[in-house]
Amino acid sequence: MRVLVPFDSRDPNTRLSPVLDVDERREFATVMREHVVTTVRGAGHEPELLVTESVEADCPVRVDDRPLSVAVNDLLAAASGPVAVVMADLALATADALGTLFEPAADLVLAPGLGGGTNALVARHRDFRVDYHGDSYRTHRREAEQCAGSVETVDSFRLAVDIDEPDDLRELLLHGHGDAPSWLRAAGFELETTAGRCVVVRD
Amino acid sequence: MRVLVPFDSRDPNTRLSPVLDVDERREFATVMREHVVTTVRGAGHEPELLVTESVEADCPVRVDDRPLSVAVNDLLAAASGPVAVVMADLALATADALGTLFEPAADLVLAPGLGGGTNALVARHRDFRVDYHGDSYRTHRREAEQCAGSVETVDSFRLAVDIDEPDDLRELLLHGHGDAPSWLRAAGFELETTAGRCVVVRD
Repeated sequence: MRVLVPFDSRDPNTRLSPVLDVDERREFATVMREHVVTTVRGAGHEPELLVTESVEADCPVRVDDRPLSVAVNDLLAAASGPVAVVMADLALATADALGTLFEPAADLVLAPGLGGGTNALVARHRDFRVDYHGDSYRTHRREAEQCAGSVETVDSFRLAVDIDEPDDLRELLLHGHGDAPSWLRAAGFELETTAGRCVVVRD
Repeated sequence: MRVLVPFDSRDPNTRLSPVLDVDERREFATVMREHVVTTVRGAGHEPELLVTESVEADCPVRVDDRPLSVAVNDLLAAASGPVAVVMADLALATADALGTLFEPAADLVLAPGLGGGTNALVARHRDFRVDYHGDSYRTHRREAEQCAGSVETVDSFRLAVDIDEPDDLRELLLHGHGDAPSWLRAAGFELETTAGRCVVVRD
């Protein structure tokens, strides 16, 4: 299966700007991306980065500076087999969680993200096209219906939490393993317990 | 398996106060609780409500106005078999998702909630006790280690999202089925698309 990992190498994770400066965002985003690449391999597939400008990486890199949906749809249109798209900020992903995405045989397998996004998908229907704008999870379900394709949704917390907004950092500190939570801790982030959900503070 | 569904019948879902008045909170919390009761049954178990003051319900009700952890621990101490605790605001839960909680044979099975909570658990170790204060997921893992018991964590988005804070309502509108999302829509809540995650607005 072709597994694309899109990554905005020009200005990654902009919604983390309130808590990370531009250099930190680049560094942290790269650590998360490397986690995703390693995890895709752990799940038995060879990932391919789809980036907005050239990066150094130990896997194939395809540069395309057009909007994400346009770049992905060109590849879907040219594909002769199933194509997966796994976001580069899924720093909680494990090989087991990705296995639940890769395994079903449906025409479209979706891993919804918090807030209506599509954090990962596998497309097996030749007419299916992505549209990552807005609440893409529902858009993609409708799109699959228009293609008369079968749809399966993966129920995974680890695939639902993309590290996109400052609150997401707490989930990484709580449940992450490896370099991404280590990077955060080294940068001074830690959990603080409250009466409700934990919050992340920086020393 | 004994399945407890704790429910604060006195003042439910206080963290939804910014968007729901007290009567609405009671009504909405009851709809969510009924969804959880039905879903536990759908997963093959008979639930029992553990409430802070008496309520009408079509299942056994146990009233205990002490703090949640104290009330649950008394029942754990007296139990002769496995005990599950499933929070009453898991309005996204499905029978399949609860099945992944009830199925593993580990001494402790945990379904973490967003922000470090424990949204559902199954305890099979006689010495295990709960502590729902703060980041209870990590507390419960440590507690199980102290009991030298095996621990399994369920990776489920549907069990991880408790409808606790205003932002959680969007997940219910996006992914919920049945009476709870219908109640929200009838109360005027709807999704609004943004450049990032959806937001919920009320007309």
